[in-house]
Amino acid sequence: MNFVKATYFDGQKMVYEQNYPDPKPGESLIRVNLAGICGTDLEILQGYMSYNGILGHEFVGTVVKSANSELIGKRVVGEINAGCGNCDACSKGMERHCPHRTVLGILNRNGAFAEFLSLPEKNLHVLPDSISDEQAVFVEPLAAAFEIKEQVKLDSSWRVAIVGDGRLAQLIAQVLKLSCPDVVCFGRHKSKLDSLEKFQIKTKIGIEKSDEQNFDLVVEATGSNSGFSDTMKLVRPRGTVILKSTIASRENLDLTPTIINEITIVGSRCGLFKPAIDALATGIVSVDSMIDSTFPLEKFSEALEHAKKPDTFKVFLKP
Amino acid sequence: MNFVKATYFDGQKMVYEQNYPDPKPGESLIRVNLAGICGTDLEILQGYMSYNGILGHEFVGTVVKSANSELIGKRVVGEINAGCGNCDACSKGMERHCPHRTVLGILNRNGAFAEFLSLPEKNLHVLPDSISDEQAVFVEPLAAAFEIKEQVKLDSSWRVAIVGDGRLAQLIAQVLKLSCPDVVCFGRHKSKLDSLEKFQIKTKIGIEKSDEQNFDLVVEATGSNSGFSDTMKLVRPRGTVILKSTIASRENLDLTPTIINEITIVGSRCGLFKPAIDALATGIVSVDSMIDSTFPLEKFSEALEHAKKPDTFKVFLKP
Repeated sequence: MNFVKATYFDGQKMVYEQNYPDPKPGESLIRVNLAGICGTDLEILQGYMSYNGILGHEFVGTVVKSANSELIGKRVVGEINAGCGNCDACSKGMERHCPHRTVLGILNRNGAFAEFLSLPEKNLHVLPDSISDEQAVFVEPLAAAFEIKEQVKLDSSWRVAIVGDGRLAQLIAQVLKLSCPDVVCFGRHKSKLDSLEKFQIKTKIGIEKSDEQNFDLVVEATGSNSGFSDTMKLVRPRGTVILKSTIASRENLDLTPTIINEITIVGSRCGLFKPAIDALATGIVSVDSMIDSTFPLEKFSEALEHAKKPDTFKVFLKP
Repeated sequence: MNFVKATYFDGQKMVYEQNYPDPKPGESLIRVNLAGICGTDLEILQGYMSYNGILGHEFVGTVVKSANSELIGKRVVGEINAGCGNCDACSKGMERHCPHRTVLGILNRNGAFAEFLSLPEKNLHVLPDSISDEQAVFVEPLAAAFEIKEQVKLDSSWRVAIVGDGRLAQLIAQVLKLSCPDVVCFGRHKSKLDSLEKFQIKTKIGIEKSDEQNFDLVVEATGSNSGFSDTMKLVRPRGTVILKSTIASRENLDLTPTIINEITIVGSRCGLFKPAIDALATGIVSVDSMIDSTFPLEKFSEALEHAKKPDTFKVFLKP
């Protein structure tokens, strides 16, 4: 079979293709119901990762072909990293850090902005009916938010700050609020920050003197060097910083406070899907206020333009 | 009383002064027997920290005046951070991170390149006779090396790399070797690396392909951005990096691998003196091969020039 419809990035621009080649043989084949546009997709279009191919790593779909016949017809989401299965990292269960890994829509593996995609069977998670397609697209970024809890032992007495007010920042704020009552989100867009109020998450535009060195845990979720600088201002001596967004810039990054104030910086990327699916199924995390709009796959250009606007929440593509 | 002799940095150059003003009243007064020149001193002379005053934070001396009469005549070393005693950090025993702290020869407190210095009584540690004056000057940097063990739970199975071959790097290598048998020191100067051989510490000039992402713990002890870049090359995914030297440069620092490989970066500064004194007293750490030469205080210019040379170990000033 062939892909009927796909959009791919040729390194310069996005191209719509009616007849894209077969997905990988030996893997489960999934018809994409809905895909989400993520900040990482927008960065890849700027040249980050030097990726060429079909973009998209947030999706929900239906299994149409699989070695495991029980999966066929099931609605699934999929972990995006596929390890080689043979190396030291994979043998330790660290497929997400396999040096030969492929990553859906990011690294040597065609992604979800297409009618079909393929993934290894073990990457797939069958969804309960209580999670809608729109909600399911948030499983991948929500798993990335839950990854923080895997990496850092949270203390409920901690003062927590999130730097950023985008989609990922909002998910992180909700996830950390489950463990730490005192969460403040520092953003730039009132319309985005407002949507955190219903979760009793405090919001602020701008750092006041009294905020400086006042937080035990600070999460950088902007990927900008001004966000990194704000993060280092907020964290207390001996405090912990989570870097949740890749910081593409290499310039004007001041590491001196890290040493002088003995800060611990923890880089954090993809997480396991199970806690994210459970959180959506039980409703302890809500993504409904972050749903923006859905575009047909052919209108990917308009969808990307809309996703780039600072006030836009999650934009979906429907093949 | 007045200082009879001192050298101070006026922000431009080092000045020799016969009649320097009184040290702080209410503190213990110490006659400096011997002071050490540290890389930080050389950085301060380049403008780092914007410090003006008497330099020097590595010393051994004899107490000549103190509210505690038992200290008088005793040979001591002294912790270099003095907290305000009233703030939140000080109340938690974190004087080293007091926002109002002074730091001997580094921040708002005259240092050890003088005939006398003063420190709060609680900063002082009486030395056993088994530690020579030359050895005692290493207590401060050795405490900084031991600080790593306070911050990170070391696993004896870890592969450990040190980036740098200077005085601090060598102390760190010895300290980590006490907990982790597999320690490799990556340096640039054969003469310096050679002195690590007697401690069964492996040494290497240059990073080979097989070294990349092959270390569980990597300590950056150069303070250069090329050292930081080498460090990030050596550490395995989900590994730990210790930043032990302040990285003055803000340019060309790539934090992307931190996030993609989920590295934990721990900034590390001053440590407690007790483990360092014990290690020298029991001989589990040896500093004798790092003793270079002693200059009289008046010859500070020659001493500093000698300390700057890449092959020089510890240079002492004797008031």
